[in-house]
Amino acid sequence: MKNELAVSSFFPFWEKMEQRHRELIESRTNRLELSPGRIIGGDDKSCLGLLLVINGRLKAFILSNQGREVSLYRLFERDNCLFTASCTMNNMNFEIQFEVEKKTSVYQIPPDVLEEVQSESVEMAQYIVNLMTSRFSEVMWTIEQILFKSLDARLAAALIEQQAIDESDELIITHDMLARQMGSAREVVTRTLNYLKSEGLVEIGRGKIKILDYNALYDMANRD
Amino acid sequence: MKNELAVSSFFPFWEKMEQRHRELIESRTNRLELSPGRIIGGDDKSCLGLLLVINGRLKAFILSNQGREVSLYRLFERDNCLFTASCTMNNMNFEIQFEVEKKTSVYQIPPDVLEEVQSESVEMAQYIVNLMTSRFSEVMWTIEQILFKSLDARLAAALIEQQAIDESDELIITHDMLARQMGSAREVVTRTLNYLKSEGLVEIGRGKIKILDYNALYDMANRD
Repeated sequence: MKNELAVSSFFPFWEKMEQRHRELIESRTNRLELSPGRIIGGDDKSCLGLLLVINGRLKAFILSNQGREVSLYRLFERDNCLFTASCTMNNMNFEIQFEVEKKTSVYQIPPDVLEEVQSESVEMAQYIVNLMTSRFSEVMWTIEQILFKSLDARLAAALIEQQAIDESDELIITHDMLARQMGSAREVVTRTLNYLKSEGLVEIGRGKIKILDYNALYDMANRD
Repeated sequence: MKNELAVSSFFPFWEKMEQRHRELIESRTNRLELSPGRIIGGDDKSCLGLLLVINGRLKAFILSNQGREVSLYRLFERDNCLFTASCTMNNMNFEIQFEVEKKTSVYQIPPDVLEEVQSESVEMAQYIVNLMTSRFSEVMWTIEQILFKSLDARLAAALIEQQAIDESDELIITHDMLARQMGSAREVVTRTLNYLKSEGLVEIGRGKIKILDYNALYDMANRD
């Protein structure tokens, strides 16, 4: 058996919690394997509870009534997926969905367990405040990008992010995927990509984009 | 002395809190009078703590580096202003600012008091979770409007909101103010207003807009 993250390692305050809370979490936590392409949330109204990402990748996004999608943030190993526990949140009236981007293993702490521990343990309640603040920050960052950044800077940022995820300068990505990521329209992305190409920063192929000048893209992304 | 909201009335769980926490809050809470036009947050880096709105009106907004402003939500009597306590939040790396829209009285619970109570009282920590979720929801609603709604529907919604705030069909508002509210550009707002005018829904004057057909605007705002 390989050395894997334990449930306790997700909670920095584990030792401070009462023993009955630790036992409750350990005895009721499940391990789930999520297949690529699966969507969590949305029509699937299941409230899974708090998911702790052991490995893999999830993408958080929102969807308009017309089906337009905007990516919000990604979750990797050691991240916690709080909004899959939305049924435990009184005042939450928006919906964040998740797409499993690659094979992902998670610990699942069921909603009733989360609620019980959170209502009795000040450490857990504080932890949830911090998690919420941290997700709120990521969403605000995305929103500020969408609202305030010029399109070329945003596209450059999206390409750099994708390069970091793929760990390669050859990105396997369509204009449509980029558009969803940026909360923009495909035609607009295509036009902006052609501009980056004309500047010699990228090469455009079918379903892929090659980064030719990473530093120039980086500067463009971080320009105000 | 007129009958006014007590600090305790802002916390539905007041009686459940330990006496030392109640005493700490009561002895350390200040009352502040905020003048219209004052901006809280931003350059003014003061961390006021948790503000409880006794009466008046505050507008929450974000500002881009280029100075573009987008309104997020408003706070009225009995609302709590959480993000003025941002210094108490570990993972918060975005900035929401507040504009005092009319003479406003608040109770101010200083950041150190909030931190102390929140780290010891599970009720207070849970309350902060709820408050955060509720603000997160308001921001997401605004964002979805900006991202997904067509401009005429958003303008109609903004006019209806203003009508509710002013309690009058004659809105004292400029195109520029509407643009900031909607996270759009002034020219775009002017163009869309002219469209609403041509449809007979509004009358446009200098610095004011008169609503002629509330029901049609309402339908437009709630159309998908």
